[in-house]
Amino acid sequence: MPEYPTALGASSLEKITLLGQDLARDVMGEVGFGELAFWLATQRRPGKGETRVFEAVLAALADHGFTPTAIVTRLTYLSAPDSIQGALAAGLLGGGSRFLGVTEDCGRFLHHALSTKDRPVDDELALEIVRAERAAGRFIPGLGHHVHKNGDPRTPRLFEIAREEGKFGPHLALFEAIGRVHPQVLGKTLPLNGAGACGAALADLGLPLELLRGFALLARAAGLIGQLAEELRTPVANEIFLSVDLDNRPVPPAGDSHG
Amino acid sequence: MPEYPTALGASSLEKITLLGQDLARDVMGEVGFGELAFWLATQRRPGKGETRVFEAVLAALADHGFTPTAIVTRLTYLSAPDSIQGALAAGLLGGGSRFLGVTEDCGRFLHHALSTKDRPVDDELALEIVRAERAAGRFIPGLGHHVHKNGDPRTPRLFEIAREEGKFGPHLALFEAIGRVHPQVLGKTLPLNGAGACGAALADLGLPLELLRGFALLARAAGLIGQLAEELRTPVANEIFLSVDLDNRPVPPAGDSHG
Amino acid sequence: MPEYPTALGASSLEKITLLGQDLARDVMGEVGFGELAFWLATQRRPGKGETRVFEAVLAALADHGFTPTAIVTRLTYLSAPDSIQGALAAGLLGGGSRFLGVTEDCGRFLHHALSTKDRPVDDELALEIVRAERAAGRFIPGLGHHVHKNGDPRTPRLFEIAREEGKFGPHLALFEAIGRVHPQVLGKTLPLNGAGACGAALADLGLPLELLRGFALLARAAGLIGQLAEELRTPVANEIFLSVDLDNRPVPPAGDSHG
Amino acid sequence: MPEYPTALGASSLEKITLLGQDLARDVMGEVGFGELAFWLATQRRPGKGETRVFEAVLAALADHGFTPTAIVTRLTYLSAPDSIQGALAAGLLGGGSRFLGVTEDCGRFLHHALSTKDRPVDDELALEIVRAERAAGRFIPGLGHHVHKNGDPRTPRLFEIAREEGKFGPHLALFEAIGRVHPQVLGKTLPLNGAGACGAALADLGLPLELLRGFALLARAAGLIGQLAEELRTPVANEIFLSVDLDNRPVPPAGDSHG
Repeated sequence: MPEYPTALGASSLEKITLLGQDLARDVMGEVGFGELAFWLATQRRPGKGETRVFEAVLAALADHGFTPTAIVTRLTYLSAPDSIQGALAAGLLGGGSRFLGVTEDCGRFLHHALSTKDRPVDDELALEIVRAERAAGRFIPGLGHHVHKNGDPRTPRLFEIAREEGKFGPHLALFEAIGRVHPQVLGKTLPLNGAGACGAALADLGLPLELLRGFALLARAAGLIGQLAEELRTPVANEIFLSVDLDNRPVPPAGDSHG
Repeated sequence: MPEYPTALGASSLEKITLLGQDLARDVMGEVGFGELAFWLATQRRPGKGETRVFEAVLAALADHGFTPTAIVTRLTYLSAPDSIQGALAAGLLGGGSRFLGVTEDCGRFLHHALSTKDRPVDDELALEIVRAERAAGRFIPGLGHHVHKNGDPRTPRLFEIAREEGKFGPHLALFEAIGRVHPQVLGKTLPLNGAGACGAALADLGLPLELLRGFALLARAAGLIGQLAEELRTPVANEIFLSVDLDNRPVPPAGDSHG
Repeated sequence: MPEYPTALGASSLEKITLLGQDLARDVMGEVGFGELAFWLATQRRPGKGETRVFEAVLAALADHGFTPTAIVTRLTYLSAPDSIQGALAAGLLGGGSRFLGVTEDCGRFLHHALSTKDRPVDDELALEIVRAERAAGRFIPGLGHHVHKNGDPRTPRLFEIAREEGKFGPHLALFEAIGRVHPQVLGKTLPLNGAGACGAALADLGLPLELLRGFALLARAAGLIGQLAEELRTPVANEIFLSVDLDNRPVPPAGDSHG
Repeated sequence: MPEYPTALGASSLEKITLLGQDLARDVMGEVGFGELAFWLATQRRPGKGETRVFEAVLAALADHGFTPTAIVTRLTYLSAPDSIQGALAAGLLGGGSRFLGVTEDCGRFLHHALSTKDRPVDDELALEIVRAERAAGRFIPGLGHHVHKNGDPRTPRLFEIAREEGKFGPHLALFEAIGRVHPQVLGKTLPLNGAGACGAALADLGLPLELLRGFALLARAAGLIGQLAEELRTPVANEIFLSVDLDNRPVPPAGDSHG
């Protein structure tokens, strides 16, 4: 007979527990939503400082305007207004390697670098890492931003918050050091991407690396509900659809030449 | 030339704004995640009491153990571990009419009842409404619970929190009154469902009715990340899969008789 | 001990069966894909004529250019190129009430009309039905098309194919009759929508009404793979994204006035 | 002004074209569904033999009983019966690296091997490839099957069909040769996986490697509609859900020890 262990939600006739707590008495009204999300993911209650850093990360990633994910959620709602869950899910499906992946990639990269080099984080270590990546012809995840070429304003702010809360750990430290030393190797100065800094901060909070993208998706879920709310109020999806559809240009099938 | 207005995220070379705020300076580190989700959906910053009620609702809906949505997320992760976004989206797609719908249905029902009857909320109004639904052969959304037959512990707690924060409005009042009077009409006492109470509370907070299900989905997104984290730590999805697959019983095709 | 009956796929050490057939010997190389999809849905093997009508319906619904679903699939691929399944799933999520729903709505409407009126299909019956809908202030699903105002070319062709194959049943007959008589009631001539005709044809084939939308989605899955293939060859998603993002116009948050 | 070229669907007042054809006159009733799916993906019309091999592949991949994807589709339908598109999309999201990936992985592996070694396919080439993979500690995609340990019946059948149609190209040839020679290197005989053979066959048909998984998903879409149809007729999802939920075992949160 299989048995499925879980420490998450459970209920009996009289009581509901979540994470071993009495949901109604000890969680509702007592635990903020960011704090709860952290607790659910780690199964330990975060401290105030951890929650503040975590919520700063979620704020940094929640919405960036008309990204592909936002457009997708609005178009799906236009096409299937009967299914809010479908519109939200469709938008989240854009949360893959390219637009939302830098958070995960950067966290993983820093973690890997730290665990192979068993040394204190300093500029020399960072230099060594940047040189090795350069030699291997690889980009460093989180270095560079297509808009904020002079610096992503989220990055110094996240450093500051993490320092205030005593949560500036080795991942953030290494990321910051990479920011200082990379011009020596690359011959140009690139900004430290805010979404990358978020990955470093989440790793310093001890959150599971496999789920760093998951937290970016959670943040984005709140953003996409904002997009839906705005679409209800000021619809643009039909105009977006028409702007594409009316500008289509029929061309002959690609395979005709082979035919 | 089409133009797409938005008050959500926007960025320029130096600055990122969200909801008209400077994201790095005024949102990160200053605004909690529940507060931000509310703000994104309404485009107005909630007060402390509103945030507390809202976060209590999110906590009430975040996770209920091995629901279909949780099982779906775990099985999808088993099958496609390369795509966290797919596992999360798949789970949210179960957030439809049956398992997550009561929040929306109850909020809409109460809102409709309140806007057709332009009267103060009291037991007489509630009685009239229950009688009308009974006469029409319809169930009242949010009345009854398949497990908590003696009362859903979330409901009185949510009433209490809303009262403490001065956010106990007409939707919650009508829901509570229905709880008092329905035995006179139905001849039995049913519990007020906690997920239904959440719908009433969200409606009292002035959140858009079309998105009540969206907030249940946001809460569930946090819960599903918890499910994924637990699956990483203590996997059960493969055992669930095998428990079904190994107990399959081949039967002849249904259409053979017609053939 | 639960047991899960199924007539679909099953395998043992030596053999794989599908629908009670030996998959390798009797299905592969012997059964076309449309035929197989029909068989899977009904658990009975369709005749040649049924397959031809069914495949004509799938062709009619496979792709309509830059619909919201096509744009969504392309944008999701742009954003998460690592997950083809996510791009496909996101596009299918637009297959809801508005853009893909007419097939299902029309099939259900005709079926309901036929089962309440137990009479042979003729113009008088159609007239009665159109009058009743008019009186109730309801639109008839499948009547009208936003582009093909003089007639949807798919409709007469589907009628023709169904007649050739002896599959022109009561649903198609009633739909055609509605096309003849509605001007008398509505005072104007509307085209019979091809997607609506597809719903009538699927209903005449005895396919389950609950799944009519499912067949539209299957057809669209093939179309979306075509969209992805074209996106690989001639990418437009990034340009679509930029055309929206660059034309965004920041506006003040909606809720500021209430604040 | 952006313009979006497409050779897929286009419509004007009088006419609908698809792939440069008149949809109503030249596609509906004339083109089978497998043939159309191939045409949409390649933008060239396949010959009869190509279509037969392609449809054999789709049949081989359509349904394997209670796989995670099938269970997911059924559970999502249980939870959100209002959204067929959600149930289908959720199931497809399981079509990732683990359960549906072997088709793509095998096709890509063979293609890569063939393009790096510019030599005719024979056992010596296969031996060299198997040895290189062994030396690198990598598994060969498509070699081995967890059920069909004595041979997957789909594999010889697909070889046979491809030969009959003159479509047995270098990918299938190399896959077959690997099947012959690998015991010399690995010291044991593994079966050639049918899903892997499908990848080889699709590659020999000249289909885009990036979309091999897409064809597996298309096949699976038909299978999942079969699963939904069977769930409507003989529901098992609720029993599956309960078999998990009732066998849950509450355990203390994992993080408590750290606390």
